[in-house]
Amino acid sequence: MTATVLPLRPAREPSLTAMVDLVAADMNGVNAVILERMQSKVALIPELAGHLIAGGGKRMRPMLTLASAALLDYTGTRHHKLAAAVEFIHTATLLHDDVVDGSGTRRGKRTANIIWGNPASVLVGDFLFSRAFELMVEDGSLKVLKILSNASAVIAEGEVEQLTAQRRIDAGEEQYLTIIGAKTAALFAAACRVAPVVAEAGEDAELALDSYGRNLGIAFQLVDDVIDYASDEQTMGKGVGDDFRDGKMTLPVILAHARGAPADRAFWAAAMAGERATDADLAHAIGLMRATNALADTIERARHYGRRAIDALAPFPAGKAKAALTEAVEFAIARAY
Amino acid sequence: MTATVLPLRPAREPSLTAMVDLVAADMNGVNAVILERMQSKVALIPELAGHLIAGGGKRMRPMLTLASAALLDYTGTRHHKLAAAVEFIHTATLLHDDVVDGSGTRRGKRTANIIWGNPASVLVGDFLFSRAFELMVEDGSLKVLKILSNASAVIAEGEVEQLTAQRRIDAGEEQYLTIIGAKTAALFAAACRVAPVVAEAGEDAELALDSYGRNLGIAFQLVDDVIDYASDEQTMGKGVGDDFRDGKMTLPVILAHARGAPADRAFWAAAMAGERATDADLAHAIGLMRATNALADTIERARHYGRRAIDALAPFPAGKAKAALTEAVEFAIARAY
Repeated sequence: MTATVLPLRPAREPSLTAMVDLVAADMNGVNAVILERMQSKVALIPELAGHLIAGGGKRMRPMLTLASAALLDYTGTRHHKLAAAVEFIHTATLLHDDVVDGSGTRRGKRTANIIWGNPASVLVGDFLFSRAFELMVEDGSLKVLKILSNASAVIAEGEVEQLTAQRRIDAGEEQYLTIIGAKTAALFAAACRVAPVVAEAGEDAELALDSYGRNLGIAFQLVDDVIDYASDEQTMGKGVGDDFRDGKMTLPVILAHARGAPADRAFWAAAMAGERATDADLAHAIGLMRATNALADTIERARHYGRRAIDALAPFPAGKAKAALTEAVEFAIARAY
Repeated sequence: MTATVLPLRPAREPSLTAMVDLVAADMNGVNAVILERMQSKVALIPELAGHLIAGGGKRMRPMLTLASAALLDYTGTRHHKLAAAVEFIHTATLLHDDVVDGSGTRRGKRTANIIWGNPASVLVGDFLFSRAFELMVEDGSLKVLKILSNASAVIAEGEVEQLTAQRRIDAGEEQYLTIIGAKTAALFAAACRVAPVVAEAGEDAELALDSYGRNLGIAFQLVDDVIDYASDEQTMGKGVGDDFRDGKMTLPVILAHARGAPADRAFWAAAMAGERATDADLAHAIGLMRATNALADTIERARHYGRRAIDALAPFPAGKAKAALTEAVEFAIARAY
């Protein structure tokens, strides 16, 4: 086994500022669609949806749709509705995820299921999901509908697989990659891919941006799964150690378990089974991850997918959009530090 | 106030046999699509979905799509996928409803949420919902997509409104009709309306079949809400008195409360608030409903919508399909006896 060296921190802290600036005008259009279409005469719907939608999310996925369109010099506004649809699908899955996981905090705020209860979260999620499809139907592109209905089915499939892998110490890296490829990367890929469809930029551009989004999504989730063991609650906006207590078989656990001595493997088996869930157990777990380089190597895996994402942009001309999309990858990975 | 007379029981017991026979060949096609498209490499998905889909449902909604197509002499097979999509949407809402209501039995069997847990039911519902849209996208009609994405949003809106009306004794008949028009009738209407779209039968046929389905759906739900107070567990396949214990403001409750003496109104307020939930309380509630004609008049309301459904079929020529659709209305109402 070779020793793994932590990659150096980049000279300048990468951020999403370039991307935020690039898409600012379009994002106003997207936000207008989001605000208008989350309304309902049933007051609980905008109240609950607004808690999450207005609640400090980065709008990462719609931003990717807009930045991808900018990369292709698209000058229309069709992508505003589609970016809003992407955000609605994402919000619906967050609402359902929090019910599934019994989460209590997200982005540093109490989750909707804690405030309004699981039933309301399930049903408002369904509403937003339906609204997303209404927006796509209004746009009228069957190709976009195909991309996003397929992504939605894949996401749900990934979530179910994650559920069945939970607390199963025998889940391995391949299964983990399948799960995050479905539950996270599929929507990143779709968010990027709809841009070349509306810009009519051709099949090659679609495949390139799908690849960019998919690899970025995997990198993003890998780093998220590191953060759950390596950050404090304030930084990450959700409870540190949630994955540990939920028995989620994320890559840091898989690597630490696979590389551990017999006693350590027994600890992981007990922890994932839910028998070791105290703060002391979590601290011990993090110690084992550091000793086995599990966290550093998960970040290294994320860098691999990040490089693939950036390489997927090779066919596109240099410029502000390409620079912003490139820095978004660096930002996704730098969150781990 | 005028006395209400219970309508006579029809000479022959109405049944769905004529409709089942009419669509038998097409239903084989629909079932093939359903079986094929509920598959997934994630084994829990077909396992859980199959429990409900293969579990003795009447396939009422896809049957309506097929019978409506037969009424229009449609000879293609496009409607097989669409009828399957309608059934997937329905199944997804049932899975989520059972989570929302914390139900334990449906159609005389244990519910999926009891067997596999709420998280799996939420996520498999999401999967089926996405699959429904994939099937519609494959068919390729934006008009069908618009009808069913709108119906889906309306259903979710109705479910949320039902949730907010729960345990609120001040909910009235108008709100109740809005809720059942959304949560039940919208999908009945959409199931019928997609047939004239694929048959290219024109706007008038669309509006007529939408009206047939919508009114049938309202009649169907009214009768369902009577059955919850007037049947034994075996007949109805779900727990009698579930609505009572859940504090659902259905029409029998609304009428009995509105017509009750002050002491009775106090009983209803306490019961809907969850403070009177024993079997003796339920028996007392049924007694009050009978004394105020609340059950009989709810059935009379159902007959009103049933007549409107049958009248909506007037433009179509007599024949097996029209007879089957007419008898389906009579069947929906006769279930109350």
